[in-house]
Amino acid sequence: MKITIEERDAVYKTIFNRRDVRGEFLPDLIPDEVLQRVLKAAHHAPSVGFMQPWDFIVVKDPAVKQLVKAGFEVAHADAATMFDGDRKATYKRLKLEGIIESPIGICITCDQERTGPVVIGRTENKEMDLYSAVCAVQNLWLAARAENLGVGWVSIINHQTLRDALGIPENITPIAYLCVGYVSEFHEKPELEKAGWLPRLDLESVVHYEQWDASDLKNASKEKKG
Amino acid sequence: MKITIEERDAVYKTIFNRRDVRGEFLPDLIPDEVLQRVLKAAHHAPSVGFMQPWDFIVVKDPAVKQLVKAGFEVAHADAATMFDGDRKATYKRLKLEGIIESPIGICITCDQERTGPVVIGRTENKEMDLYSAVCAVQNLWLAARAENLGVGWVSIINHQTLRDALGIPENITPIAYLCVGYVSEFHEKPELEKAGWLPRLDLESVVHYEQWDASDLKNASKEKKG
Repeated sequence: MKITIEERDAVYKTIFNRRDVRGEFLPDLIPDEVLQRVLKAAHHAPSVGFMQPWDFIVVKDPAVKQLVKAGFEVAHADAATMFDGDRKATYKRLKLEGIIESPIGICITCDQERTGPVVIGRTENKEMDLYSAVCAVQNLWLAARAENLGVGWVSIINHQTLRDALGIPENITPIAYLCVGYVSEFHEKPELEKAGWLPRLDLESVVHYEQWDASDLKNASKEKKG
Repeated sequence: MKITIEERDAVYKTIFNRRDVRGEFLPDLIPDEVLQRVLKAAHHAPSVGFMQPWDFIVVKDPAVKQLVKAGFEVAHADAATMFDGDRKATYKRLKLEGIIESPIGICITCDQERTGPVVIGRTENKEMDLYSAVCAVQNLWLAARAENLGVGWVSIINHQTLRDALGIPENITPIAYLCVGYVSEFHEKPELEKAGWLPRLDLESVVHYEQWDASDLKNASKEKKG
C-alpha cells in the first residue's frame, strides 16, 4: 500500500512534535475508543519471531497510581544523591513524572517465555524480545501524539516496586511505565534541551558511512592490495 | 501543535502497513535527501536524559555487506540446530534477511558513556539508554515506511562479528542491523503470520486493567477493609 507525500509529512510532523510530557497533563477523560486505537497501534509493533511478547496494564485507579508514585519517590531521592553541585540543584527542580495528574498510566511488559524457549531471531541475541516491547512503546507514543495525547516515560522507578504495585508476575519483565493524557501544550523542544541540560547533537555527528571510522576500511583495503 | 484527523489516520496507516521486509528488496537507489530525512526522524526519537546515545552506520559497500552476510550465515546455521522436526525444516526455508539485495544497510548502536556516568532517568534502570536506541530504530522504521521504503531487522548475527565487520569500538553496543530499500510489494500481513508460524494475538488478551490480575486488587482491598 502506497503512502502519499501528505501522509508521509503527517508521520514526520508527529515524530518531530512528540514530547516526553511531565507537567502539562489535563484531567480530561480519554475516550475508550481513543485508548483502544493507541493500544492497537502498540500491538502492531514489530516483534522478533512474531512472538508479540508485550502486555499492557492500563491504570486509572488513584490507589494504584499512589503505589507507583511512592516507588518513583524512593528512586528519585536515591538518584538525587548521584548528581554533584549545580547539577544536583537543577535535578531536584526538574519535574520528571506526571503519575497522579495524568488520567491513565500504561505499563508495558515483556513475557520472554510467551512462545517457548526457541524464538526465530532471538537465537543469537536474547534481548531481542525486550527490544520488541520497546518498539511497542514507541508505536504507542507516536499513536498517542497523533491523537494529541501526551506521553511521559517514568524510568526512575525500581522494577520490583512496579511489579508489586501492579501485581506483575516474577517471570514478566517491566519495560516502561507511561503517563498518558491530554495536555495544555506540547513544548516546542525537549525540556532538557530548553533547560540547557544537554544540546541536540548535530545529525552529521552521529552518522557514519561504511564503517565507524571509514578510514579503517581504506587502510584495510590498502593492506589487502599491498 | 495540533494533529488533524487526516494526519492521525496517516500515522495509523503507516503503523499498520509497516512490515519486516526480507525478500522484496529492489536495487533502486535511495536518494540522499530521503535517507537524510529517515535518519533525522530516527535522531528525533526520545532518549533518556536527552543523551541521544545512538550512532548510525550507513553501509553501501558490497564488501562490507559481505562481512555482515557472512556473520548472519554462521549465526543462522547455529540457530537451525535449535529447532526440532517440522519446525527445523520450516525454519530453513524462511528467508530471514536481505543484506546483499537491499541497497543500504543501517547499523544502529548505543554509546552508554556518551554523556558521562550519571544520566537523568538511567539511575535506577541501566538499560534505559539501550531502549532509547531501540526507539530510534522504530522511528526510522516508520519514517522509512512513510517514504515507501521497506526495512528488515537482521537479529541473527553475533554482535562481535558485527563490531568487527563495521569497525565498531568495544565500548559501543550494537542494537540493530537494518536492511533498507524500495520493495516490489509490502506483504498484507506479517510473513510469519501468513506462514502459520504463530497467530496474531487478540488485543484483549494482552490488555489488563488496574493490575495484571485485577481480582488481586479487589482481594487486597477486601483484606484491607476486612
